[in-house]
Formats: sequence, C-alpha cells, structure tokens
Amino acid sequence: MTKEMKKELENLGQKVLQDIEKKENPSIEIPIRALSNVIFDKKAGQLTLGDKTAKRYYFNVAHAKKFMQTLMVASFSKQLIDQKIHASIRDMYYNLKRTLPNSDENTFDEQSESDPIIVDLEVAIDVLREQLHLTTDRKGIVAGNVKIQDRGDIIDWSKLGSGGWSIPSTVDEVDFKKVDAEFVLVVEKNAGFERLHEDKFWQKHNCILIGTGGQPSRGTRLLIQRLNDEHKLPVYVFCDSDSYGFYIYSVIKSGSISLAHVSDRISTPSARYLGLTVSDIYEYDLKKAAIKAKDVDIKRAKELLNYEWFKKNPRWQKEINLLIEKGIKAEIEALSHRGLKFMSEEYLPEKIKKKDFLD
Amino acid sequence: MTKEMKKELENLGQKVLQDIEKKENPSIEIPIRALSNVIFDKKAGQLTLGDKTAKRYYFNVAHAKKFMQTLMVASFSKQLIDQKIHASIRDMYYNLKRTLPNSDENTFDEQSESDPIIVDLEVAIDVLREQLHLTTDRKGIVAGNVKIQDRGDIIDWSKLGSGGWSIPSTVDEVDFKKVDAEFVLVVEKNAGFERLHEDKFWQKHNCILIGTGGQPSRGTRLLIQRLNDEHKLPVYVFCDSDSYGFYIYSVIKSGSISLAHVSDRISTPSARYLGLTVSDIYEYDLKKAAIKAKDVDIKRAKELLNYEWFKKNPRWQKEINLLIEKGIKAEIEALSHRGLKFMSEEYLPEKIKKKDFLD
Repeated sequence: MTKEMKKELENLGQKVLQDIEKKENPSIEIPIRALSNVIFDKKAGQLTLGDKTAKRYYFNVAHAKKFMQTLMVASFSKQLIDQKIHASIRDMYYNLKRTLPNSDENTFDEQSESDPIIVDLEVAIDVLREQLHLTTDRKGIVAGNVKIQDRGDIIDWSKLGSGGWSIPSTVDEVDFKKVDAEFVLVVEKNAGFERLHEDKFWQKHNCILIGTGGQPSRGTRLLIQRLNDEHKLPVYVFCDSDSYGFYIYSVIKSGSISLAHVSDRISTPSARYLGLTVSDIYEYDLKKAAIKAKDVDIKRAKELLNYEWFKKNPRWQKEINLLIEKGIKAEIEALSHRGLKFMSEEYLPEKIKKKDFLD
Repeated sequence: MTKEMKKELENLGQKVLQDIEKKENPSIEIPIRALSNVIFDKKAGQLTLGDKTAKRYYFNVAHAKKFMQTLMVASFSKQLIDQKIHASIRDMYYNLKRTLPNSDENTFDEQSESDPIIVDLEVAIDVLREQLHLTTDRKGIVAGNVKIQDRGDIIDWSKLGSGGWSIPSTVDEVDFKKVDAEFVLVVEKNAGFERLHEDKFWQKHNCILIGTGGQPSRGTRLLIQRLNDEHKLPVYVFCDSDSYGFYIYSVIKSGSISLAHVSDRISTPSARYLGLTVSDIYEYDLKKAAIKAKDVDIKRAKELLNYEWFKKNPRWQKEINLLIEKGIKAEIEALSHRGLKFMSEEYLPEKIKKKDFLD
C-alpha cells in the first residue's frame, strides 16, 4: 500500500518534469470538488465526485502559488512515507511555512491555505490523506472479541478493562488477526458505549462495540468500513433520535458532501439504522424523557427529508415527518428512564432479534 | 473504598431519619461552594474550600425541592454502588425525572437541576462523584511501561500499538501491577501525543506519556495524581505557550475554582511546567511559527498574572509578561517548524536533561 502511494506521488512529480522537458506549461489535473460536481451514486449507495476536472498551471498568475503549494505538500508526504513517520496537518503547516528568499512572500500564511491543498492531492491521485501519512485528530473507542496487530503489538480488544482501545487517526495498517463477532454496533454517544461496555453487551451478544463520540472520525469510519468489507459483518448504527443522529448515520452509510471524494474508502453503504427512532419514544414509553425539538432541529429535519437515501424509504420519511409534526426528539440516554439496564437488556436485544432496522 | 462510600451515604440517610425521630426539622449540611468560600491553601499548594457551610431544610419552602432532590441523588448513588454499575450524570437525570403523584411538579425539569446536586453531595460527604459511580465523559490516552488490572483484565500500556489506552471516566479501581518509569509527561495536544508515541519517546526516555486532548478530564487528572502520589513519579506538563496552555497546567497542579472541593483528590501540586514558554519562541528560533496573540489571550494572561501560584515565581511573571508585551503565542506543533522529530529528539530531551522547568 505504502509503495503504491509513493508511486502515485512520484508519478505526479514525473508528469510535471515531463511537461518541463517538453517545454510545455507544467500542470496538475485535479477533479473539481464543488457541490456542482458531487453526485449520489445510486448503485453504490454513496456520494461521489463527478468527472469534471480542472488544471492547475505553473505559468498562470492565478495558479502559480497553489501550484507550488501542491508540489510542496506532495513532496512533504513523500518524505513522510520514506521516513515511515506520520504528521498532523497542523504539523505540516508549521513545517512548510517559510518566507521565500528575497521576498516578503510566505509559502503558506495560514493553515486554512494548506488544508485544502491536502484534499486537492487526495483527489488528484485518488488516495486517502491517511495513506499520505497525514493524520487527523483521533476519536472513538472499540471493544470486542478481536485481536489485531498494530505497530508490531498484538492487541486484544476483549482485554482492555473499562478503557477500550482508542482508535488512532488511521487504521490503514492495522492487521486483523482474529475477528470473532456477528455484527458491529456503532453507538453515537460515549455514555452509551460506557453503559454497554460495563454491561458486557459485546460479550453477551458477540459483537464489536464502537463508540464514536459524536460524528465519527475518519479513522473510526475506516475501521467500520474495514470490518464490514473485509469481515462481512453487518453494521448497526445507534444514535439519538434527532436530526443530528440521523445525519451521523447518513455520513457513516453514504458519506458527506465535503468528503465525497473518499466515500468509497470510508463509508459503509450496507449500514443499517437500529434506533432511536421517533416512534420509539411512543413505543417504549419514553415521552417523559423526550425533549422539545428546537427550530434548528426542525429546519435540519426538513433538509434530511430531501436526501436521496432518506427519500427512497417510506419508513424514514415517516420518522422524519414525525419529528417535524410532533416537534420532539430524544437522546439514547433517555432509555435510562426505563431503568439503567433497559438499553442493554431489553431495547437493543429486542431490536436486533426482530431485525427492526431502517435502511 | 466502595464500602466507605456506601457508609457515607447511609450516614446521610440516618442523620435525616434521626432528625425525624427527634421531631426536628430534617436537614443536610453542605459546605458553601461560592467563590467567597474558595481559598488557596499555600501549604498544600491547592485551591480548597473554606469552612463556611449552609443547611438545607425539609420544612422550608425555599429548600424543600432541593432537599428532596439531594436525597433522590443520594439514594440513586447507593443503588449504583449496591448493583456495582455506573451511570453518566445524564443517565441519572433521565432516570430520576418523573412527575410527582397528584401534581404537575417534576422531580427534575432539566439536567441543569440535577448536576449541581451531585456536586452538593460530593461536598457534603466529601467524596468524588466517580466514587458515587457517576461517570463523566472520558478523554485522554496513555502509553508507557505500565501494567494495570482493570475489571479483571491485565492491560499492558506498552503493547497497544498506535492506539494507546483510552482513559476511562474513573481510574479509581485501576490496580497498578507494574510501573516502570522515571517520570510522567503530560501533553496537552493529541497531535503531540501521536508524534511522541510514534517516535517511541516513552520507550527511549522511560516515561509514561499521557495525552489530555485539551483540558484534562477528571479521570485523566486522577490518573496523573495517582501516578505521582502512589509511585512517586515527577510530573512534567507540556502545553501550548498561551494563556490556555498555562491554565491547563494550573488546573493540573492546583485545581480549579469550580472543582475546589476535590482538589486534594485530583490535583498534583508537585507538577512542573516543561514548556512551551514564550521565551522558547526566541530561544528555539520559532518566530516564524508563532501566532499573534488575540485580545482575549492578553486579557486572560493579565488575569493569570494574579493567580497566587503564578505570582510567587518570577519566571512565571516574566513569561506571562512577555506574552503580553510581545503579543505572541505558539502551539506545541510549532516545533515542527524545526523538523518533525525536533520535539522528540532535541527539544524535550534537552529540557528534561537541563531540568529547565517552571513551577
């Protein structure tokens, strides 16, 4: 994998070199990432980029700086790969920031200039930033009957006490040694992870438990995808019954507009929504623990109604409309209203047994 | 430990019962947590509560609801301890929220009503919320030559690959089986943790590496304190060179005003500040990677000047004044300007060798 990345980066450099040798204006071709070029691939069930591209030229006053920046980032990534080290995107910014000789011009003035260049590069050579050894902030925890090898260590996810394994920025190089589970349960809230982990839910139900702590990090999304893709494990997503919770599911399943170019690497189209639904508030007698939806929730819910993947399923339409009409929402912690172990011992086992999912 | 907590809760109930039997107005005595009762204990080097207390009475229209709420939370905690389970403070709120029979009155209307009651209880019976089995959100990662036992598992912090051990809400019940380290290095930024972890800093320098991801969680602060207190390990704190970084150090060392009542349990008065300092920006040639301080940074820095523990050290006064006068600050990632491994291979080893710390 690392070899391929290096090759891709070298090709990029070779192409520019050839332009120079042919006395042509050196250029880099980059797919356009604007909304106008984001499409929903119905067959794959994912957001993806269309085929519009743009060229960035060296001899063009409007392009020259970005051209230089693109090559600087590419060269930096190649060094990381060569040296077998990783860097955060902020580290990269600080490392590359300097003043050009005999000028007042900085290579980069702000990190907001270097971040989009990384995405350009991801798109241009079709890789993940993590494969270029550029890390993002870590978030997410996992527990389950799984043994992995990572940086030479064998790690048993079933033997980490109350802590769990902290999911790193990238799990690209993680080697699965043993995966003994029937499904993956993704929980939006850390509190939900703690509850289920303490109740040994993953042990009793032979699953892998992942806590995302809100919108999952790229590393966590990649881990979910790998477990689904390489180990054929169904993925069930468990979020708050509100617009934000539904959106988290949507991102795990179909990707997001801003990361449409990497959907195929980090999203899981077969992921299924387990709960909470708005109907659950009524069916499980949680009205006392429900919350009045705010205007922003209603507004967001109306937007979700028009998402392709929420449009095609009448049950999703029903749930989102219910949120809008009744003006209520609920957090997964609301299940504690029925008793602290209600979630682990009744709600989830019942949902999973009945296969009561939304797709 | 659990037994003691249970005893404390039972004593609280017994006291109320005795009041009733003696036909007195049942009351609970609670130390006052207002700023007026927060003092800096110079000898201990910590913020702490003074000895002002207030009584909460059952037969008092202004107190009755809070009195009931206090007993409800105490009773809930006792159940958690009896059942050997934990709950988040949000779970507790949902669990206890109900409408009183024959009335429109709820036990709790919002979580903002139940949260302070937990703190009241912490203060009243002098325990940590975590000892009452009420958890807070987890944050923080650790790696090092340490073996612990937690919930029956033996966990080796040196064998967790790139992930590290995710520090749970409470480490009260963690059993240290082997601690082979000379000091604890606490890093404010996750990116710094990743850099040092990848460079095997903890292995090369025989230390325990803790990443706090910003202001450390209570669980992380307790872990730092236990390593310092039980294993006599010096604690070095490594933060951004700005008001917020200095404040993080201050909280680790001396506690915070809002948590003054638990300083003695979760703060580490002997913690030392390793860097970044404002002087470092000049001494290590980081000016190009420094950032202009904002008005809010300057305002906050002026407040810090008056903190007792920053007041007594002329070097701290010099550093904070430098920030104010020069109007600059820097993040730990700024060290990447000197090369990605500059932090692990030059800056930190030099600081530690020279024992160049601020107290």
